[in-house]
Amino acid sequence: MPGPAGGATSHANSPAASPAPLGWLGEAARLRAEAGLHRVLRPRAPRAERGPTGAPALPAHGSLQPWTDGDLLLDLAGNDYLGLARHPEVVEGGIAALRAFGAGSTGSRLVSGTTTLHGELESALAEHLGFGSALVFSSGYAANLAMLTVLTGPGDLVLSDERNHASLVDACRLSRADVLVTPHSDVDAVDEALATRSWRRAFVLTDSIFSADGDLAPLAALHAVARRHGAVLLVDEAHGLGVVGPGGRGALAAAGLAGEPDVIATVTLSKSLGSQGGAVLGPAALRDHLIDTARTFIFDTGLAPACAGSALAALRLLTRHPDLPERVQRRAREIAAATGAPEPAGAVVSVVLGDPERAVSVAAACRDAGVAVGCFRPPTVPAGTSRLRVAARADLTEADVSRAVGVITDAIGRFPAP
Amino acid sequence: MPGPAGGATSHANSPAASPAPLGWLGEAARLRAEAGLHRVLRPRAPRAERGPTGAPALPAHGSLQPWTDGDLLLDLAGNDYLGLARHPEVVEGGIAALRAFGAGSTGSRLVSGTTTLHGELESALAEHLGFGSALVFSSGYAANLAMLTVLTGPGDLVLSDERNHASLVDACRLSRADVLVTPHSDVDAVDEALATRSWRRAFVLTDSIFSADGDLAPLAALHAVARRHGAVLLVDEAHGLGVVGPGGRGALAAAGLAGEPDVIATVTLSKSLGSQGGAVLGPAALRDHLIDTARTFIFDTGLAPACAGSALAALRLLTRHPDLPERVQRRAREIAAATGAPEPAGAVVSVVLGDPERAVSVAAACRDAGVAVGCFRPPTVPAGTSRLRVAARADLTEADVSRAVGVITDAIGRFPAP
Ligand SMILES: Cc1ncc(COP(=O)(O)O)c(C=O)c1O
Ligand SMILES: Cc1ncc(COP(=O)(O)O)c(C=O)c1O
Repeated sequence: MPGPAGGATSHANSPAASPAPLGWLGEAARLRAEAGLHRVLRPRAPRAERGPTGAPALPAHGSLQPWTDGDLLLDLAGNDYLGLARHPEVVEGGIAALRAFGAGSTGSRLVSGTTTLHGELESALAEHLGFGSALVFSSGYAANLAMLTVLTGPGDLVLSDERNHASLVDACRLSRADVLVTPHSDVDAVDEALATRSWRRAFVLTDSIFSADGDLAPLAALHAVARRHGAVLLVDEAHGLGVVGPGGRGALAAAGLAGEPDVIATVTLSKSLGSQGGAVLGPAALRDHLIDTARTFIFDTGLAPACAGSALAALRLLTRHPDLPERVQRRAREIAAATGAPEPAGAVVSVVLGDPERAVSVAAACRDAGVAVGCFRPPTVPAGTSRLRVAARADLTEADVSRAVGVITDAIGRFPAP
Repeated sequence: MPGPAGGATSHANSPAASPAPLGWLGEAARLRAEAGLHRVLRPRAPRAERGPTGAPALPAHGSLQPWTDGDLLLDLAGNDYLGLARHPEVVEGGIAALRAFGAGSTGSRLVSGTTTLHGELESALAEHLGFGSALVFSSGYAANLAMLTVLTGPGDLVLSDERNHASLVDACRLSRADVLVTPHSDVDAVDEALATRSWRRAFVLTDSIFSADGDLAPLAALHAVARRHGAVLLVDEAHGLGVVGPGGRGALAAAGLAGEPDVIATVTLSKSLGSQGGAVLGPAALRDHLIDTARTFIFDTGLAPACAGSALAALRLLTRHPDLPERVQRRAREIAAATGAPEPAGAVVSVVLGDPERAVSVAAACRDAGVAVGCFRPPTVPAGTSRLRVAARADLTEADVSRAVGVITDAIGRFPAP
């Protein structure tokens, strides 16, 4: 790339304009690096053919992960909460789909991108989560964009929790509604906004288990308020499915709200189900409405058959092993108790450390000691709350947990707060 | 769902509020049905184990598709332009990835969602398309949202062609730039806007081959104008990759623009590569910038390993068989000539029929006669231009083409314009 930075930082309407109008990217990179916000992608290596040693039979298919630097790390970084991503049945579900349908779905779900597998998966998701219908998307992100954009328009009001996931925030930006960001899990603020603002239709939008903090939204109270005002409750169950509720049916099911006529949920297939994709769940009329109008459905290639097949196999495993959610919850509580983190509602333990450099140092020390943990910095979390994000897994042994806890507390001790 | 429609069509701030605030969905469905805009998903059935008869060796892996209604249809509806979605090497590429890495990538690309396969795929894409770097996303949609949102901010100007794909339109909506929609492929309008409007950074945004019409953007002229003004040219090569340019390197490569410092491209892995996913291509500094700041990268689960593995296998096949793009182009030209459609630039032949009912009837008649074609209605295409979208494939035989053309022209004849 020729030329210095800044070539296009002002209107350069002349034949001599620099061909380096992206030169500013270099300066932007320097500023991020200075702020401790530069990221490097570290690839995982292919898994050796042997299984992990000494771990229990069912979910023991992934807690040790090889990385290209030669490490075999205990994985507390990913969202494969139930350890199903490498489960033989989940792998075989994907393989069977690849053989039956090919690699891609080949088109929009409206054209050639729907297979019988997509339909089976949608029925199974609707039944498992207790809703009238489900519609599958290529990602949870796309499902969230769809849910909000097909329901809202000018004159509508969306009350969005300040800690909602980025995909919900982007969904708000794409909606044409008035969006009011409400304080975290503040039911009174929602009540007051519904009572005092004017709107045509209103929607209360929240994660069920928040992705960075791991806490649970006050769903029953939010729903009571929403119903009293005639608003709809929209809940992202990305971190609820497979982790909380009876048999992993999610936080809405736990609160007795699944399938209510004024409740809509989204899920992702990429966390506890160990695959890729997302879904919107609600009454059958919502599914029809999405099929006819959702831009991230109509104008996106259908989910790859392998992903649908793997997610379906994982969902069947979850149904056969309804104890998996309780196992991951117990592991999360053990890790939180030992690291002084707040009690987690699901799988996510959030160990707040403060500034990004400290979080990076502690996470690197954990990795050096053989334990992979997530390191969340701005913009993923608010400034000043950089943290370790430790994700429990159903396939952790007691020995795994005590090792992990030892490594994490030791690493934190080595980098005290300034 | 209890209650009549309309429960939430006005502010219902009382304890007696109806629990059916989604009742309006029923009325919305009725209106769509009346307008001929209701859609039904029709699933494809698993493929029988036998291969198609009498077709040439390499790309003959999918032109006949089984559907659940028992039909075995000639597939001119999907975007599997090179017939690679079912190619054994592409299927095996996915299977190997599933076995090596599991079903899902298990997390954000920044955390646990990057595998060595993602890196190999990115290198191969960058090399094939002639750019300094590539970054892979979970879909082409997500790649487009990322490209625009990381580059633009307040004070910036985006000139977006009026026929750009929905994902580019949504990307414009999410950007904080001033967006000006320019008349289709109108280089003078772009020139004038860049000369007369004020901006900090400016971007010219276009599909390379337009998804519904199948025509080619005037890339060389757009680039000359962009460069003269110090603007950046952003090109969605979703329908260009694998179909046009030397060895299927895309329309930018054909125009000699790949890798220019003021050009950025996106591709999808879901069309000619027969898989799922997308990528942004540009200078290495852009890749770094995306990794650090793109919301649909940071906050989305990494592409499933199977999809990365299949796309990589397809790209290698394309490299070994550089004649595939010319084959699909020839088939498209033959179909267009015989159906009176405008000459296509790539694989997409657009047979405009007018109102949605006519397009639906003609498409249904084609299907009854054994040929699946796309049927595009609003909002996919502008009102009054409902059409058949006929996608050529590299694996069509001459007999396939004459059969398809016969079926299509016959069906059109049976439903004359009103
Ligand atoms: C709460 C929440 N919603 C949605 C998503 C997006 O789901 P996906 O990764 O399947 O796109 C994520 C994470 O990726 C998430 O944490
Ligand atoms: C021009 C164009 N861009 C982007 C996309 C989105 O790509 P993907 O389906 O991989 O999300 C599509 C079609 O789906 C398209 O036609």
